[in-house]
Amino acid sequence: MPHPASDCFISPSALLEQWQGHRRLTRRVIELFPDEQFNTFAVGGMRPFGTMAVELLRMAAPTVQGLVDGNWNTGVAGAPRSKAEVLALWDADTAKMNELWPRIPATRFQEKLTAFGQYEDLAYRLVLYVIDNEVHHRGQGYVYLRALNIEPPHFWER
Amino acid sequence: MPHPASDCFISPSALLEQWQGHRRLTRRVIELFPDEQFNTFAVGGMRPFGTMAVELLRMAAPTVQGLVDGNWNTGVAGAPRSKAEVLALWDADTAKMNELWPRIPATRFQEKLTAFGQYEDLAYRLVLYVIDNEVHHRGQGYVYLRALNIEPPHFWER
Repeated sequence: MPHPASDCFISPSALLEQWQGHRRLTRRVIELFPDEQFNTFAVGGMRPFGTMAVELLRMAAPTVQGLVDGNWNTGVAGAPRSKAEVLALWDADTAKMNELWPRIPATRFQEKLTAFGQYEDLAYRLVLYVIDNEVHHRGQGYVYLRALNIEPPHFWER
Repeated sequence: MPHPASDCFISPSALLEQWQGHRRLTRRVIELFPDEQFNTFAVGGMRPFGTMAVELLRMAAPTVQGLVDGNWNTGVAGAPRSKAEVLALWDADTAKMNELWPRIPATRFQEKLTAFGQYEDLAYRLVLYVIDNEVHHRGQGYVYLRALNIEPPHFWER
C-alpha cells in the first residue's frame, strides 16, 4: 500500500478497508435479526431494518461502479427481500467492491459527479455519504435489536 | 485549500469540514430533545441520549487536542449534564476544534498513537472512530425522537 502524501488524511485503499470493516459489522447486525422480524419489526413508526438493508445494498456497490465508469444503474430492486437473500447479495457486493475499487481513477475522488442521476457532489463526499448512511441506519438497527432483547455486536468489532 | 495529491481520498481540511457538518446535525438532534427526556428517555434498556451526547463531547475535541500535542486529558467529566450545558460545551468545542485542527502536523494522521492512554491505532483510524461513533449514536437518537413522536432533521442536512 503506497504511503499517502503528507497533506492527506486517508488514502483510497485505506478508505475501502474502513468501509469493508463497517460492512462486516453491518452484516453481523443483519444476521442477528430473527427472520420473522427482519422485514416487520420497527420502533417509532420507522422502517424495518430489512428495508434499510436493501437501501444500503442499492447504494454501496452501485456507487463504486458509478465511480469506475459512470454507470449508476447497477442497483438491485428496492422491494423487500428475505434475510438470506440480503446476506447473499451483501457478500457478492463485498467481492465486487474489492474488485472495482482499485479501478477508480486516482483523481476521481476530487471530481464533481452526479450520482444516481440526481446527487451532484464531490466524489469523496458522495462516498462518505454512503458510508455514513450505513453507520446511521446500523445504529438504528442496534436499537431495534435491543428492543427485541438481542445483544448487538460491539461497535468496535469490524 | 490545497488540492490533495492524486493518491488521496480526502485532505485533512476537507475531513474537518465533514466532521463539523456531522456535529451541526448532531447539535440539532440534541436541541430537539425535550429537556425532561434528554437524560431519562431510552428504548430497549439503552442509555439516554444525554449520556451519549456527553460521551461525544468527551471524545471529539479531546481527540483533536491529543493529535496536536499528545495531551489526551482535556475531556469534561462524564456525569450527566442538562441540554443547555451540553449545547454550550458543544459550541465551545466547535470553535476549539476549528482552531486546533490546522495545528496538527501534516504527517500525524499516518502515525500510530495511543489515544486516551489505551487505544493504540493509526491516527486517521482514531479520528474516524470518533466520527463514526457520533453518527452511530445520533442514529439511535433519531429512533428515540421518533419514539417520542418528534420528527428528526433530514440526515443530509449538515
